[in-house]
Amino acid sequence: MFSTILIANRGEIALRVARTCREMGIRTVAVCSDSDRESAVARFADECVRIGPPSPRLSYLNAAAIVTAALQTGADAVHPGYGFLSEDPDFAEICEAEGLTFIGPSASLLSRLGDKAQAREIAQAAGLPVVPGSSRSLVTLEQAKSVAGEIGYPVIIKATAGGGGRGMTVVRDARELPRAYAQARAGAQAAFGDPRLYMETFLENARHIEVQVLGDGAGGVVQLGERDCSVQRRRQKLIEETPAPGLPRELADRICAAAVHAAREVNYAGAGTYEFLVDGDDFFFMEVNCRIQVEHPVTELVTGVDLVREQLRVAAGYGLSIRQEDVQPRGVSIECRVNAEDPRRGFLPTPGVVEEFLPSSGPFVRVDTHGYPGFRVTADYDPLLAKVAVWAPDRRQAIARAGRALEEFRVSGRGVHTTLDFLREVLENPVFRAAKHTTALVDDMGTGGA
Amino acid sequence: MFSTILIANRGEIALRVARTCREMGIRTVAVCSDSDRESAVARFADECVRIGPPSPRLSYLNAAAIVTAALQTGADAVHPGYGFLSEDPDFAEICEAEGLTFIGPSASLLSRLGDKAQAREIAQAAGLPVVPGSSRSLVTLEQAKSVAGEIGYPVIIKATAGGGGRGMTVVRDARELPRAYAQARAGAQAAFGDPRLYMETFLENARHIEVQVLGDGAGGVVQLGERDCSVQRRRQKLIEETPAPGLPRELADRICAAAVHAAREVNYAGAGTYEFLVDGDDFFFMEVNCRIQVEHPVTELVTGVDLVREQLRVAAGYGLSIRQEDVQPRGVSIECRVNAEDPRRGFLPTPGVVEEFLPSSGPFVRVDTHGYPGFRVTADYDPLLAKVAVWAPDRRQAIARAGRALEEFRVSGRGVHTTLDFLREVLENPVFRAAKHTTALVDDMGTGGA
Repeated sequence: MFSTILIANRGEIALRVARTCREMGIRTVAVCSDSDRESAVARFADECVRIGPPSPRLSYLNAAAIVTAALQTGADAVHPGYGFLSEDPDFAEICEAEGLTFIGPSASLLSRLGDKAQAREIAQAAGLPVVPGSSRSLVTLEQAKSVAGEIGYPVIIKATAGGGGRGMTVVRDARELPRAYAQARAGAQAAFGDPRLYMETFLENARHIEVQVLGDGAGGVVQLGERDCSVQRRRQKLIEETPAPGLPRELADRICAAAVHAAREVNYAGAGTYEFLVDGDDFFFMEVNCRIQVEHPVTELVTGVDLVREQLRVAAGYGLSIRQEDVQPRGVSIECRVNAEDPRRGFLPTPGVVEEFLPSSGPFVRVDTHGYPGFRVTADYDPLLAKVAVWAPDRRQAIARAGRALEEFRVSGRGVHTTLDFLREVLENPVFRAAKHTTALVDDMGTGGA
Repeated sequence: MFSTILIANRGEIALRVARTCREMGIRTVAVCSDSDRESAVARFADECVRIGPPSPRLSYLNAAAIVTAALQTGADAVHPGYGFLSEDPDFAEICEAEGLTFIGPSASLLSRLGDKAQAREIAQAAGLPVVPGSSRSLVTLEQAKSVAGEIGYPVIIKATAGGGGRGMTVVRDARELPRAYAQARAGAQAAFGDPRLYMETFLENARHIEVQVLGDGAGGVVQLGERDCSVQRRRQKLIEETPAPGLPRELADRICAAAVHAAREVNYAGAGTYEFLVDGDDFFFMEVNCRIQVEHPVTELVTGVDLVREQLRVAAGYGLSIRQEDVQPRGVSIECRVNAEDPRRGFLPTPGVVEEFLPSSGPFVRVDTHGYPGFRVTADYDPLLAKVAVWAPDRRQAIARAGRALEEFRVSGRGVHTTLDFLREVLENPVFRAAKHTTALVDDMGTGGA
């Protein structure tokens, strides 16, 4: 097993990874920007290296600084968390070139699956249904027009280099297309350094269903069930749960089997998530996330499997500790993302200093957070403050428990607002309670577009 | 179901009960002494009633004040938690007489099982093995001499009205007996208002194994597995786990079956714990605790059953929500009791104000605590500050996880010490790790007798 792992991330996920390392007897090196020097992971890790100023570009996206820190501290592996460099094939390649194990799929697989148009093709070749759309990246507006005419409006234009709900534009009719295409192209260039786009039919009332897989890199793939992440605002997930409520088990099983088949075809290594849209009885492949996912705790709570531990095992060459028959999900888990945002003001981030900070606890509650009294919320990073996950034997009890856990969570401080009350509203929503919600739920509630 | 429950307790268990009530949509009334006005449960509950000065006798043991508070706030039931009035037949009787449902066994059963000599007889009549000893309460020193002569030294003298590890005296030889008997008698009168004593053979190297049962009051009894609570200091439990490590499954199953049989014989109602001593392949009934137990979280973590919810269901006449075949324990759970005591100074309680308070969290960790930054530790109540429970697929991982969780728990404040480091030492102890420990472990470590 690795002796020292550098964690190339911040916030709750860096702490999450460090905890498993500690339990496995692995030394941890945290990295921090200047604004994160007092962070929870900086204090928890065995060592912490400053890698640059607050701006992500100069710190958590600064591959050279991170690799230097890893080499200087004697790390033998790098865990990238999620976001930042976690799916960057160049970063994976630099790590490997410097003799550091990158804890994730190979650079070449990251490259193939990170190109969303190519990932679509690979999935299609493996026999997975995909949303009707362009088979390759679009090069010209004429191509875009032609594909849209073929598949019919509304369409969604996505950045080939995007993912995680970013870099998407919905186009409702042909007149909107030229401007939308030009804007999307410029936006993709600005956000991802890559102007390429592809196009799909836009499914307005679909569910977001994703499958957690673990691959051993030698064709062995285990699935740990599906998650429903349909509660989204502007394509950012707010509430996730497993198993998917209201989805016939037979359909869920077919989706899980499709994900396993696709992951086997590419010899997937480590933790990955196959994302699908489900429309009635049909499901369509969307993308693969080649990393640990924000919402992984719900899967851990129902399966009892420590997903980070499995990532480490696979990366170190020990293979998975579980076979498919060992995965026996139990009960229901729901996670709510508590963001430092003001729902009354269009979910504007609310920078400030947290004074009181008392996370939920007690029976069947798990909180992942990097917050503490005195924690400073800054505009430099994403507004996630805590993930409150609960477990219960059935969905009704899980919803009640999540409501209780959100209610008891105390966060306050000058200027700091949170989504705690908003999340409780969603849990009370009759469409959500009836498990009849789609990705349109939050917008339909009238707060999402504010 | 009840509409309002008064929680006749304080500290973490009052909060624990309130959380389940909240999840079930039941209104909660907390009670507090003058020093607990700012307590976590006082803030969490729907209402809080002051019942008296800090001294337990005038507040949490003040049955009249508590029943008055229940009647004034429109409560229809009373949850007694553990300790205080939880096993007091008089309190149960007063509640019932005032039209309040006492959440626990009937007054008459509390009375029969609360008399430890009678409980022994009942168990024996049900066919359970008991430690050799006096069959009834001792009345004279001559009786004590005669029983000791019969069963052989060392013996243990226990208060008939004791329990929970309190009111016990070990006597190593006949010369010690007269003084020990006189002291034990005076001690029992002082502590429990009842001088009666009984005597058993003292098993020096036994394990404390207990079985969690749930009874529906109509002869239906479910067992939720056993717990090993052998890590004790002066008969106070420090670390508990389930399943019992190193105990052959066949023996554990026999002990669980014996507990179910005994609980059926008395038509047990609600949550109860049958405690045994295990010496090699032999097990002996010790006592029944007729209430929720401090260490119940480990059972909840492996079974997924909310024990407080089952207590409420049975008390309200809904019966249990589970049958024996629904109890499918998974993995291992360990709980560590974090006390505000100084292990370097003989585990003296350390009153003071907690300034920094950051409990453990993250994957597979559950913390039950009433602490918060600013919490005042007083000498009026027991020193329990938090219970840190973890779950893992196997014992090795559970121990590592418990160690990690204790390590990250941050408590500080002028004069405040905790048992956090001491608990980590126990987790590292080779005898504990090998699961070869008995109730003598902590004394053998050399810190227990300090």
